[in-house]
Amino acid sequence: MKNKFFIWKNNTLRTINQKKLPLKEEWIELRTIKDYFSAIKELKVRGAPAIGVCAGFGILSSISKINNIQIMKKTIIRNCNYLRTSRPTAVNLFYVLNKIENITLNYNGNSCIELKNKIKKFVVSHYKYEVQTCEKMANYGVKLIKNNMNILTHCNTGMLATPGIGTALGIIYKAKEKKKNIHVYVPETRPLLQGGRLTIYEFEKANILYTLITDNMRGLLFKENKIDIVFVGADRIALNGDTANKIGTYESAVLAYYHKIPFYIVAPISTFDKNAKTGKNIIIEKRDPKEVKQILNKKISIAKNVFNPAFDITPAKLITGIITEKGIIKAKRECIKKLF
Amino acid sequence: MKNKFFIWKNNTLRTINQKKLPLKEEWIELRTIKDYFSAIKELKVRGAPAIGVCAGFGILSSISKINNIQIMKKTIIRNCNYLRTSRPTAVNLFYVLNKIENITLNYNGNSCIELKNKIKKFVVSHYKYEVQTCEKMANYGVKLIKNNMNILTHCNTGMLATPGIGTALGIIYKAKEKKKNIHVYVPETRPLLQGGRLTIYEFEKANILYTLITDNMRGLLFKENKIDIVFVGADRIALNGDTANKIGTYESAVLAYYHKIPFYIVAPISTFDKNAKTGKNIIIEKRDPKEVKQILNKKISIAKNVFNPAFDITPAKLITGIITEKGIIKAKRECIKKLF
Repeated sequence: MKNKFFIWKNNTLRTINQKKLPLKEEWIELRTIKDYFSAIKELKVRGAPAIGVCAGFGILSSISKINNIQIMKKTIIRNCNYLRTSRPTAVNLFYVLNKIENITLNYNGNSCIELKNKIKKFVVSHYKYEVQTCEKMANYGVKLIKNNMNILTHCNTGMLATPGIGTALGIIYKAKEKKKNIHVYVPETRPLLQGGRLTIYEFEKANILYTLITDNMRGLLFKENKIDIVFVGADRIALNGDTANKIGTYESAVLAYYHKIPFYIVAPISTFDKNAKTGKNIIIEKRDPKEVKQILNKKISIAKNVFNPAFDITPAKLITGIITEKGIIKAKRECIKKLF
Repeated sequence: MKNKFFIWKNNTLRTINQKKLPLKEEWIELRTIKDYFSAIKELKVRGAPAIGVCAGFGILSSISKINNIQIMKKTIIRNCNYLRTSRPTAVNLFYVLNKIENITLNYNGNSCIELKNKIKKFVVSHYKYEVQTCEKMANYGVKLIKNNMNILTHCNTGMLATPGIGTALGIIYKAKEKKKNIHVYVPETRPLLQGGRLTIYEFEKANILYTLITDNMRGLLFKENKIDIVFVGADRIALNGDTANKIGTYESAVLAYYHKIPFYIVAPISTFDKNAKTGKNIIIEKRDPKEVKQILNKKISIAKNVFNPAFDITPAKLITGIITEKGIIKAKRECIKKLF
């Protein structure tokens, strides 16, 4: 299976406006650096791996017509700084921009074409790397899936979040490819409804059997033995295995533990944060109360006091395993160490 | 504290249209039997105790101007049958209508005024009984509340759901009355948002300290020791203590159990279902998929397959106690037996 949501051609990135999904399939073409900046800032493009790749193409687009080496270098540095201000937390965004900046600063030649090609080589190889990483994780993960399994996921971790087939959803795509008979429960994932809006959209496109639920229905499904395995993504993983992911993930982990159901994190090695010894070192981002008080811009509550953490932290002891591009490991310090 | 949402005067019930809350405070006056029927059917009035009381006033309104005993009797029977078709599950609705029907069928006199007074006596005493039951439960429950406690509730179980101060929320109102320093976490309670819309509305009116959250944020709060006690209502309780309540209640129970936090059901004795030996005898109502695919009539997902159970069942072993108008009991068969 192939990701069809990110198409790079003629210095233009063609992608789908995720903000409008699923009610409107609005394809957008990103050309100027402003196009890329707004696409990331306004969540038209989202998902850490997708944002990183998008930023790379953005810099490439922005220098396609420059033929003065000094202007090109200045433009690259300025645009890297500009894109860095688009979203605060996506690790991948900073990784890509730092790499491009280093290539630029280290280039001592005088050829615009040569510098452009060096950057292009990195951007394209990073893109391919992200696609292959998804494939590798999916190939490991799919071995855990038996026929007729009911799978629980969370948020959106598929072709709209990565340039490949996804992290947690990549495993589901792979199972479909291998003609395994599966069914997926999709929690809508309040407040921003990435499950109800985006994952359902992907599953409709890919003809994958699913059932949409509200987030508070997971308990009932576990209780009635309707969930056999859980796959979720990760925003950041500490060196002891504690995992930050979209708000609500921790609840799935506790429910899975209580009902003795395996609970897996699916994430590339780039998700491990070498500065975080444990989950306590990960700061939980608090977002705009409006996201809770409104649903897709419709006001639903008059609440003055709102708590809106973007993610929660699942302790390593509740995690059955972490599926990476180098294999499935236990969520333990000694196993994680060996990855680097 | 007094419930100001249900005012009976001059054969008219003045109440607030809960469907429009919290964005619009639309007061409505129910006079004809059709007014009452639509108010219940369209959820303008909701909450089992509130519906029961409302139905009683409905019958009273509908016979206020009749002065022929045969016509009055026929009208009562017809209108009881009519109101029975308004909502399928509220036990209280059927209790009130059956009582009124029995009074009518057993009346052998010829005086319209006498029959009307008999019915009025029952309706008013039932109304007062419901108000007092709330008070009694609250007085028992409030003893569990210490200063500076953080309380988790679910759905709406207050002055909009009962003619009194409520079941689970009644305890919170009582704590406020006794000037205890408390703070309440309110999950929005998808799909119909009774927490985000109605409980927040009540708390704003009553100046009670709260924080609105989405349903999937409860886990994080438990993990960070931000919840000290849980109070929820009940739709139906089996004779072994298994409790049916609004979807998502079971998740709160599992989370409370895992984090060693007390979890209480607050419900009048009329909530016990003598036909249900255990939770397995309680049928879970599945509701319209639209409630999940839409939020307040705004479409949010294109999902074709949706699961929408109205409630879930919390097993007795996860329940610390049940707070009734006769005291706090263990959720055990032998304790429940003694209530009747």
